[in-house]
Amino acid sequence: MIDRAIQLIEEGKYSHARTEILEMNVVDIAELFEELETEKILIMFRLLPKEIAVDVFSYMSIESQQFLIEAITDTEIRTIVEELFLDDTVDILEEMPANVVKKVLINTSKDKRDLINHFLKYPDNSAGSIMTIEYVDLKKEMTVKQALNHIRKIGVDKETINTCYVMNQNRKLEGIVSLRKLIMSDEDVVIDEIMQTNIISLNTHTDQEEIAAIFKKYDLLVIPVVDNEVRLVGIITIDDVVDIIDQENTEDFQKMAAMQPSDEEYLKTNVFSLAKHRVIWLMVLMISATITGSIIKSYEEILQSVVILAAFIPMLMDTGGNSGSQSATLVIRGLALGEIEMQDIGRVLWKEFRVSLLVGTSLAGVNFLRIYFIERTDLNVAITVCVSLFLTVVVAKMVGGILPIIAKKLRLDPAIMASPLITTIVDAVALIAYFAIATALMGIA
Amino acid sequence: MIDRAIQLIEEGKYSHARTEILEMNVVDIAELFEELETEKILIMFRLLPKEIAVDVFSYMSIESQQFLIEAITDTEIRTIVEELFLDDTVDILEEMPANVVKKVLINTSKDKRDLINHFLKYPDNSAGSIMTIEYVDLKKEMTVKQALNHIRKIGVDKETINTCYVMNQNRKLEGIVSLRKLIMSDEDVVIDEIMQTNIISLNTHTDQEEIAAIFKKYDLLVIPVVDNEVRLVGIITIDDVVDIIDQENTEDFQKMAAMQPSDEEYLKTNVFSLAKHRVIWLMVLMISATITGSIIKSYEEILQSVVILAAFIPMLMDTGGNSGSQSATLVIRGLALGEIEMQDIGRVLWKEFRVSLLVGTSLAGVNFLRIYFIERTDLNVAITVCVSLFLTVVVAKMVGGILPIIAKKLRLDPAIMASPLITTIVDAVALIAYFAIATALMGIA
Repeated sequence: MIDRAIQLIEEGKYSHARTEILEMNVVDIAELFEELETEKILIMFRLLPKEIAVDVFSYMSIESQQFLIEAITDTEIRTIVEELFLDDTVDILEEMPANVVKKVLINTSKDKRDLINHFLKYPDNSAGSIMTIEYVDLKKEMTVKQALNHIRKIGVDKETINTCYVMNQNRKLEGIVSLRKLIMSDEDVVIDEIMQTNIISLNTHTDQEEIAAIFKKYDLLVIPVVDNEVRLVGIITIDDVVDIIDQENTEDFQKMAAMQPSDEEYLKTNVFSLAKHRVIWLMVLMISATITGSIIKSYEEILQSVVILAAFIPMLMDTGGNSGSQSATLVIRGLALGEIEMQDIGRVLWKEFRVSLLVGTSLAGVNFLRIYFIERTDLNVAITVCVSLFLTVVVAKMVGGILPIIAKKLRLDPAIMASPLITTIVDAVALIAYFAIATALMGIA
Repeated sequence: MIDRAIQLIEEGKYSHARTEILEMNVVDIAELFEELETEKILIMFRLLPKEIAVDVFSYMSIESQQFLIEAITDTEIRTIVEELFLDDTVDILEEMPANVVKKVLINTSKDKRDLINHFLKYPDNSAGSIMTIEYVDLKKEMTVKQALNHIRKIGVDKETINTCYVMNQNRKLEGIVSLRKLIMSDEDVVIDEIMQTNIISLNTHTDQEEIAAIFKKYDLLVIPVVDNEVRLVGIITIDDVVDIIDQENTEDFQKMAAMQPSDEEYLKTNVFSLAKHRVIWLMVLMISATITGSIIKSYEEILQSVVILAAFIPMLMDTGGNSGSQSATLVIRGLALGEIEMQDIGRVLWKEFRVSLLVGTSLAGVNFLRIYFIERTDLNVAITVCVSLFLTVVVAKMVGGILPIIAKKLRLDPAIMASPLITTIVDAVALIAYFAIATALMGIA
């Protein structure tokens, strides 16, 4: 269907294409627009009915949105701003260059402009910056019939009418009533009798990570946002929360791979900013890895007389690093999902200790079989390698298990305690154990 | 509030506690129940009104659910099974031991039992195993007024009434109409005129990863599930999708840290199964790390004459591994979110190449300053270290960038191409470059 529409547009058969397009979902129309040349986007955009055009606009890429705003008339901009939900408008403006923002704000009514400016001031990633104001407000004295009539009158412009909010004259939130409850109730019943007063709400300053946690915990589709005086100021719907969850996970993945987090898409990020986000942690870790260098240097004598010892360093370091990052990953993830709390540190330590005994024994055993019986390495070297391997796995798993919890206690992000940092720590422990055992067994010193 | 309720229960003031509890959200009640002794759970559970009790039950831990099923009477079980949504019942039964499942199924009507058994047969993580059957069905000949009356009659037992489904006599899905649309329409209008026929739907066999992608792409709250004959068989709501997104992310984190994925909570998983999920990959990676060992062994001579070379191996390996895992993480995440497609392999390679030139130059430069000017290492050694470091970073970033895409082309999970595997590959490249350059510069061979 998309292909046919594109072909029709390229052949200049715009009204045929329009018919085809109107059968499609707005998300797919937006995707189709991304494949067109810019002047064709403009033609097709203008051929769409107003409400559909605005919907499509909200799903387009920033680049196409910017192109359209620059290309269309002031009247058309006014229509878009009037029809878009406030949270989408704010999201788009945050990404646009100053001249485009100016063109949009000039064509916005003073009331809406004030609102937009107010929203732009909320801290990034706070409930205030995510919420929208298009909700249905009711009064508790209304009957169900009055409420439904009110909804019919104002509902078209609301983000959701499935949950309605009951406020007093000071805009203080007093209750919630679902459209479902309204439909299922007798039409003479007063809202006061059916509204739910035990309300889960967010404050304008609640951080997005906590917002996502509350949505998940209570299985909600929409949560009201109130200010410090419990006045209703907006609502957050679950579709925004799904984006937040993805964004928070992306940040965790990036931090765990020793990068500064960024929510820009990979292919849209330029080379300099990709390099910038990566180089600082690489530098820090590179310089801390010199500690392991000086450990090796201080054991130069034993290494000189038993050069074969160098051959096992990579295996020892990699296995230690991998063991530690397994534990760290599970604990970081458990903390992020709220499955592990700070007071569980003892349980984690005890669990990791037992797991490390099992894993360490298996790895050291297999390794001994391989290097002593198959590769016929010297017995002392084989013992040194396997005992150090065992100790490294035990230390790696315990360090990997508790460092993220300690980070959280220190109010740092547990995700920074992931493999790269733990590898650096475990490397040092592994090498000291390795050379100390070698020195003891092979008696130089 | 929770603390006060617990205190009242411990003092045996159950009816006071009940009043307190009924003010609370069901999720919080379930959380409170987890803190009680088992016989008090039973007492309080029986004191709650039926509908609330069932809601609370669905939010309790598997352990408490099992205890309750074992403790309560057959009649009580029947009530729970009748009131629970089918998808929740199936989820719970999947986690219970056989004797408990039997006790539940005995107390289930034959119709429902057949349905449950049918649901248990859908493949794990498919739309069929996630969906529920409690949706509202309408006919296209109905007027809005008839539809609303129908909803009022059957709506109480439905998971959602916000979206209703229009089927023909063969249960083929013909359209969707939202409660919002019904409310906003005139009551004499026929459903046929207002229903939406351009429907996004899922097949019973669609995998959960794709389900989540479709929900995100189209910003939907509920999607119908159809069989191969486009007959409506169930619906999936977004609250289940939020759980899927968390689960898929947890699996990716685990795979990227070289573990077999598991969706059990860390603290609830026993030591043996934790060890089992970790040891296989560690073993594979340990054995592949012996390749690097044999590379070192083959350069034993140069190492013997310039022992100081060993001191830089850990730094070189760690920096290479970290550089590669940064690139791999960004690409794996980009693939998972659909921001990077397979045909982007050339763009990724070119981007990583340029990033690696920038990052490699900075790291090698800083390193040269440090080891030549501050540590006063021999010039040839310093050059060897820094040139290999540069080459390692370039190779690591390009390998890290393309391996996940190649994995996807081969229909493997890109997440397994994460740091541990890439580290093992990059280690080998780094060591060969290192010793080859050393040999060339310091002229033994």
